Amino acid sequence: MFKIGFIGLGIMGKPMAKNLLKAGYKLTVFDINNEVVREVAAAGANEGKSAADVAAQSDLIITMLPNSPEVEQVVLGNDGVLATAQPGTILVDMSSIAPLVSRKLSDKLNAKGIVMLDAPVSGGEPKAIDGSLAIMVGGPEEAFNKVKDVLSAMGSSVKLVGDIGSGNVTKLANQIIVALNIAAMSEAMVLATKAGVDPEKVYQAIRGGLAGSTVLDAKMPLVLNGNFKPGFRIELHIKDLMNVIDTAKGIDAPVMLTQKVLEMMKSLRDEGKAKDDHGGLIQYYEKLAKTEVRS
Amino acid sequence: MFKIGFIGLGIMGKPMAKNLLKAGYKLTVFDINNEVVREVAAAGANEGKSAADVAAQSDLIITMLPNSPEVEQVVLGNDGVLATAQPGTILVDMSSIAPLVSRKLSDKLNAKGIVMLDAPVSGGEPKAIDGSLAIMVGGPEEAFNKVKDVLSAMGSSVKLVGDIGSGNVTKLANQIIVALNIAAMSEAMVLATKAGVDPEKVYQAIRGGLAGSTVLDAKMPLVLNGNFKPGFRIELHIKDLMNVIDTAKGIDAPVMLTQKVLEMMKSLRDEGKAKDDHGGLIQYYEKLAKTEVRS
Repeated sequence: MFKIGFIGLGIMGKPMAKNLLKAGYKLTVFDINNEVVREVAAAGANEGKSAADVAAQSDLIITMLPNSPEVEQVVLGNDGVLATAQPGTILVDMSSIAPLVSRKLSDKLNAKGIVMLDAPVSGGEPKAIDGSLAIMVGGPEEAFNKVKDVLSAMGSSVKLVGDIGSGNVTKLANQIIVALNIAAMSEAMVLATKAGVDPEKVYQAIRGGLAGSTVLDAKMPLVLNGNFKPGFRIELHIKDLMNVIDTAKGIDAPVMLTQKVLEMMKSLRDEGKAKDDHGGLIQYYEKLAKTEVRS
Repeated sequence: MFKIGFIGLGIMGKPMAKNLLKAGYKLTVFDINNEVVREVAAAGANEGKSAADVAAQSDLIITMLPNSPEVEQVVLGNDGVLATAQPGTILVDMSSIAPLVSRKLSDKLNAKGIVMLDAPVSGGEPKAIDGSLAIMVGGPEEAFNKVKDVLSAMGSSVKLVGDIGSGNVTKLANQIIVALNIAAMSEAMVLATKAGVDPEKVYQAIRGGLAGSTVLDAKMPLVLNGNFKPGFRIELHIKDLMNVIDTAKGIDAPVMLTQKVLEMMKSLRDEGKAKDDHGGLIQYYEKLAKTEVRS
């Protein structure tokens, strides 16, 4: 059985680490926040002193960090994973970061005999807590097969989608569709409301047809109640869409609608709505239309 | 029981009229195409000589025409409905047209004691044939209740959404969401493909989560096969989105993403793809990216 190191115990990482403990795995954990390290230690983990310290004691290292720079720091920095990890170690980065960074880090780790998988998740805090995340994995199939059981302690869907970086590419595709489907709902419902039609009746009339979506059913009831509590915060969706734009630039992929929605989200952030749920995107349209979509 | 007049026997109108005959309704029909009039007459309808002739013999008139100008012509023109329809007649316009035109026509009809409902449909030819259209109705509740059974012979979902014009507003909201959800799929899948990830694996990894939609499940398998046979033609979606833009202008509603997708669709039309399915929108992105999303 793996000796697992877990680095990054934030809103997502903490419940994920606890699910590994519950499943019976031996865990050494580290976070720059000492308090949360002690909390997870109280649940049965060993306290690591640094990323390097965790890496020295583990043959499977899991990272769950905010974005590309933090992952680069934890892997390549002073007291980082690369300083102490032994050849044969597997690193699974479950952060949502730029696919090109995953590929770059993988090259550096491979040169030291360490295998990397990128394995971002979707589902947010509730699914991190109940262990039902969707986990999209990129990297070598052999390493994937070795860690699949471990990942299954945190997620209900664990899928290998391609080589290193593919997990994050899949996550970006997911975030593009979610953002644009929210914008679609917003543009349609603000038009209907401004044209004098009850948005709830419009929703009920169209949800069973080709316009139906998980976004529409998840977000429209909240919009009708004027409820923009997260859920998934606009500031996090901004981060993901900025990774879309960076990735698209590197490979010359057209993402003009994503660029537009990113601008809308940034505008809401600048008005103090960064911590609203991403369904709150509709407020951008409501402000322009001077109309509120509520029943 | 109503004496029904049915005007407009195109791809949609013909099977709808036939379903009314099957349900036992007495029908007088008219179309500018004599051949299709004879075909529906052979199925049991009376042949009308003009819209006015149909209106003179009917107390419920149904119109199913391509767009606003055709409906205006049939209602207001020489030999039109208004020339002969008796007070107390109900006109149900099932065409997808601009909501403002529905309202204008309703005013003119009301002045002669004729009640109008706008009742556009979604579902396309297959659902017109099997009588399972979704019908979105705007207009007075009393008239709606009178004709609901008649509409139910053509559709499986018949919903009153508001006053006159509301049916078409709902249809426009539907068409905005469908167009933008197709664009979302296209932008995401072209990015993933260009980034070297198998689009089928991306689709399978994300379809069960928040990115899931009826559009994704209906169109992605066709895209993966390079199959752009209609379905719903790009040229028809262009017509609907132009009605969105006109409607939005009149009420100052923001529809910037719809405007972008309309431009993409027009560009495909100008390349000879007007009769492709609207899922063929992805070809706009594929051309820019110099990549094809096929497995």
